[in-house]
Amino acid sequence: MSDPKQTKVVLDEAQMPTHWYNIVADLPTPPPPHLHPGTQQPLVPADLEPLFPMGLIEQEGSTERWIEIPQEVHDIYRLWRPSPFFRAHRLEAALGTTAKIYYKYEGASPVGSHKTNSAVAQAYFNKIAGRTRLTTETGAGQWGSALAYACQVFGLSCDIWQVRSSYESKPYRHYLMETFGAKAVASPSELTEAGRALREQFPDTTGSLGMAISEAVEAAAKDPNASYSLGSVLNHVALHQTIIGQEVLKQLELFEEPAVDYLFACAGGGSNLAGISFPFVRENLEGRQSTTIVACEPKAAPSLTEGEYKYDFGDTAHLTPLLKMYSLGAEFVPDPVHAGGLRYHGMSPLVSHLYHEKLIDAVAIGQLEAFEAGVLFSRAEAIVPASESNHAIAGAIRQARAATEAGESPVIVIGVSGSGQLDLPAYAEYLSGNMADS
Amino acid sequence: MSDPKQTKVVLDEAQMPTHWYNIVADLPTPPPPHLHPGTQQPLVPADLEPLFPMGLIEQEGSTERWIEIPQEVHDIYRLWRPSPFFRAHRLEAALGTTAKIYYKYEGASPVGSHKTNSAVAQAYFNKIAGRTRLTTETGAGQWGSALAYACQVFGLSCDIWQVRSSYESKPYRHYLMETFGAKAVASPSELTEAGRALREQFPDTTGSLGMAISEAVEAAAKDPNASYSLGSVLNHVALHQTIIGQEVLKQLELFEEPAVDYLFACAGGGSNLAGISFPFVRENLEGRQSTTIVACEPKAAPSLTEGEYKYDFGDTAHLTPLLKMYSLGAEFVPDPVHAGGLRYHGMSPLVSHLYHEKLIDAVAIGQLEAFEAGVLFSRAEAIVPASESNHAIAGAIRQARAATEAGESPVIVIGVSGSGQLDLPAYAEYLSGNMADS
Repeated sequence: MSDPKQTKVVLDEAQMPTHWYNIVADLPTPPPPHLHPGTQQPLVPADLEPLFPMGLIEQEGSTERWIEIPQEVHDIYRLWRPSPFFRAHRLEAALGTTAKIYYKYEGASPVGSHKTNSAVAQAYFNKIAGRTRLTTETGAGQWGSALAYACQVFGLSCDIWQVRSSYESKPYRHYLMETFGAKAVASPSELTEAGRALREQFPDTTGSLGMAISEAVEAAAKDPNASYSLGSVLNHVALHQTIIGQEVLKQLELFEEPAVDYLFACAGGGSNLAGISFPFVRENLEGRQSTTIVACEPKAAPSLTEGEYKYDFGDTAHLTPLLKMYSLGAEFVPDPVHAGGLRYHGMSPLVSHLYHEKLIDAVAIGQLEAFEAGVLFSRAEAIVPASESNHAIAGAIRQARAATEAGESPVIVIGVSGSGQLDLPAYAEYLSGNMADS
Repeated sequence: MSDPKQTKVVLDEAQMPTHWYNIVADLPTPPPPHLHPGTQQPLVPADLEPLFPMGLIEQEGSTERWIEIPQEVHDIYRLWRPSPFFRAHRLEAALGTTAKIYYKYEGASPVGSHKTNSAVAQAYFNKIAGRTRLTTETGAGQWGSALAYACQVFGLSCDIWQVRSSYESKPYRHYLMETFGAKAVASPSELTEAGRALREQFPDTTGSLGMAISEAVEAAAKDPNASYSLGSVLNHVALHQTIIGQEVLKQLELFEEPAVDYLFACAGGGSNLAGISFPFVRENLEGRQSTTIVACEPKAAPSLTEGEYKYDFGDTAHLTPLLKMYSLGAEFVPDPVHAGGLRYHGMSPLVSHLYHEKLIDAVAIGQLEAFEAGVLFSRAEAIVPASESNHAIAGAIRQARAATEAGESPVIVIGVSGSGQLDLPAYAEYLSGNMADS
């Protein structure tokens, strides 16, 4: 790139990837299958039909390397994709680092996060399967608002169970779901058997993703016209997010930056990490890159760094299939940290498999370190990152500081998964000095 | 453009305009000068020195057509500019209109609005003049957060008086100012003589831009190291925003759309309207376009459509120069509608002059019509617009419907000045049916 001050690369719509990348095709060892909770046998497609449309079930088990993005989905992606990719000139200067730092920014989507990449795809495959209603859970509300938007696009009704702590402390996100035409309630709710049972068992609960999943799964299973929709964890969700990493590889070329040394992305359920990193795993496996990929999880829910690799349920009420994953236990309720999108007891089976195979690394970041990084990033880069994204930024800043001390100049890429405009109360709490660490 | 589904045009940084456009150079009749409030004589540069640095005073009175954007400002613009320009395929479909609708979106800036275009320029000229502190007023908080960011960039301290109704009902925006390192207080405050007098006179006041200006002006005048900074109204602010319209003209070329029939933009103090429309006024004057330019103001503060064209003060306490403008009177306090950025008694003298010379039109839009348009736009275009921007969208939708009835296919451009992510409580109020019209 001839301009040393070049700050960003924004691709044209015509340069948007046309296929999702399925990492299962390239793995040295196949990932363990999901199991039926009753029989403990590997799931067959029919097992998932009460919950998902066949288009998504096929993706969940696919071993094809490239899966074409349907035209109807691609046309919607045009509204905000390709997303921009930045050289963090001003963050580098603020840190006085010898490292080169880039970041991919997913916050310009309709709801301010990467979640719309999968939401639009899921709504589309449900629409063509004849479903008229989707149910889902949401933590901070980024997934819920993404699915609300996607259902609006394809004329589906949408019911969302949002973790109570986030529903109450961050009302703007459920206002956003309602603006897009969806119905949102705090979970656990009185609307489902699972919710009522959880409220009786834990009257003061602030909720969790695991609980909200139980409610949304139950509601979908009871309505033949409804499907359940999950915003992370499963293979097909990770698949849809791979458009992110594919764009990054093209954008690095335009920056004339052939080799990435480190890639940092936050990980809750794992779809954001998967989306930006799986194309890099492929580059690593084929010898074109030698990138250290680091999942940044919160200390409040450190599934990779402190969990056990085992078959576990995805939800609290044990309604989901058994997934082989790093888990803190399906009953684990994380502290109500601000990064609601990372408050999950488990981790994507694909991400878990890669971590177990040592193809990716992980680190746990505390809330105060994350927000210190977020404020520094905001002031330097003019983007207030999502609470979740701050964990990736903090991980990258640790690496940049280490590089400076060692006199090295690695190339670091950060996945900034979303905007923190709706997390501003958390920033205010941090700046006031009243934020608890965890 | 060979792709009929092309949704947006995003220019490269290298295509960003290098100069601001000064419409004074091209006006058929010169605009009336600002007057000294004591002598009633035209202002001379020295009169403004207590408030502004000389770089901005020169711009305020300049008759040069093109004013170069300083490199330091241009480098910061790279963080979010050029801003995207969209064809509203999905809004057209939702309306079933025969019109072609485009929109320019300024909401991807650091604070979600066009305001950073002038804030960064103003902070820069103050910095090189040796000022160390800026004071300002803000309504909804878009200008305040923009100046907070700009002061962070250039190492200036920043004190912001925010209209009380917005400070209290939309706290996220002052959290944003604080995240960027500024200090924000509700106006009228106890910190200034003007504020204390206004609180005594109007104990229950919800505040107004006019009151907040009085406080910020007083604070700057009393501190030799401080300047006052205004987010709209004055000629130099309108000047900085002209980068918007220049980009639109380039982006229309890439859409192969040579002629624009209508241009709609919201107008409070007038800088957003000026920014997108002044380059079109030039095109009109030179015969390259024949665009009807429509200022969309709120019914709650209809300065152009119901005000008087006269010399008036810019603030409630009569501390500013006298400006020839359409005004509802410096004491006018608009209803606390959600479009806080449009709650101003007056209108940019340049915009007023153009309206008086019949070079632009104006229309007043009620709050309910504005939010109906905003919800429709959100669901179609996947962008939740700022409350202010909804007025422009409503104006454009009126025009599109009229065109459909007449069987015509005009090209309509909307200036979407900002994001409504921080206005979501207003959307929730609208959706609940509890929003008052006005």
